[in-house]
Amino acid sequence: MQDNTALNALIQALRRLPGVGQRSASRMAFYLLQHDPQGAMIIAQALQNAVSSVRHCVLCNTFTESKICMTCADPLRDQTRLCVVETPSDQTAVERTASYKGLYFVLMGTLSPLQGRGPNDIGVHPLLERASNGQVQEVILATNFTAEGEATAHFLSEALKRRGLSVSRLARGVPVGSELEYVDLGTIAHALFDRRST
Amino acid sequence: MQDNTALNALIQALRRLPGVGQRSASRMAFYLLQHDPQGAMIIAQALQNAVSSVRHCVLCNTFTESKICMTCADPLRDQTRLCVVETPSDQTAVERTASYKGLYFVLMGTLSPLQGRGPNDIGVHPLLERASNGQVQEVILATNFTAEGEATAHFLSEALKRRGLSVSRLARGVPVGSELEYVDLGTIAHALFDRRST
Repeated sequence: MQDNTALNALIQALRRLPGVGQRSASRMAFYLLQHDPQGAMIIAQALQNAVSSVRHCVLCNTFTESKICMTCADPLRDQTRLCVVETPSDQTAVERTASYKGLYFVLMGTLSPLQGRGPNDIGVHPLLERASNGQVQEVILATNFTAEGEATAHFLSEALKRRGLSVSRLARGVPVGSELEYVDLGTIAHALFDRRST
Repeated sequence: MQDNTALNALIQALRRLPGVGQRSASRMAFYLLQHDPQGAMIIAQALQNAVSSVRHCVLCNTFTESKICMTCADPLRDQTRLCVVETPSDQTAVERTASYKGLYFVLMGTLSPLQGRGPNDIGVHPLLERASNGQVQEVILATNFTAEGEATAHFLSEALKRRGLSVSRLARGVPVGSELEYVDLGTIAHALFDRRST
């Protein structure tokens, strides 16, 4: 198949997608060309549209097609609370709980010294500026409970407290619906430590 | 994120890729927009190029950008043997063994009554025509050893024999480098049945 420069270029291009290796990329390329060429054109168009029109909300850093995203522009949201998440997906997860009515800040990543990602690579400075606007009273750190997410939360907590802000972190504990027998020991230890009187 | 029509359109478009669900599609879209917008444009361009320039070889049905693919156009290949495979990936696998110098025919699928794929949905008729050109003496069936691949091989074998062609199938047996203890029983049974005198 040495004459298939366009096909090979497509396979190499698809390998840029996260989690897609040589085999998956070949499978995707063959599938699209054989069974869904129209879909291939739709994907191409959607990629071009998204790259040209999606940008970051100047207030919360999430993806939006306007200057300010709909959440930030909503006057009914509680302007005194700011929930800090790693990604737009995390924001969607919190939003789906319907138990938070404040605003968000999306870091678009975590700090990771091992991978060379420092405060300038994620939205740390815009967050500090955003949180110091005089309206925000509490910052809720909702980064993931992974090593990197925890380190990021710790770093942000210190920086935000230095600015006189009240900072909280999502509660660690036993997941709803789970049986203690199957919960990992670290989680049970945290749940014991953070126990609340009833 | 109701204002993100371009982003949502991209996520929906990426779900058309085989093996990609809502979560993977979101992850791909966020990754491309955040970390590799240039890659997104490269993928879009590659998709458009491939769809517009890749077609099927008129002789062997594989993907090519010419009328006849390089393998079929190669005068040094043995014109009397035709190896039938399901996909271009399978053709590449056989080709990499460097132990076959004949020509190929790529079905681009298998028969599958359950999924409604009959002889007209894969390249059965072009194959029969191709194999009856007077030059081909032996057809080697190299479809996969799955239920669908076996059924396809059986169907093709009958049809090709009716046309007076010599038909063979890849040998079933114990994989090279494997230990009997860990080989499934069906494979050992086939290897016993197809045993060869040394």
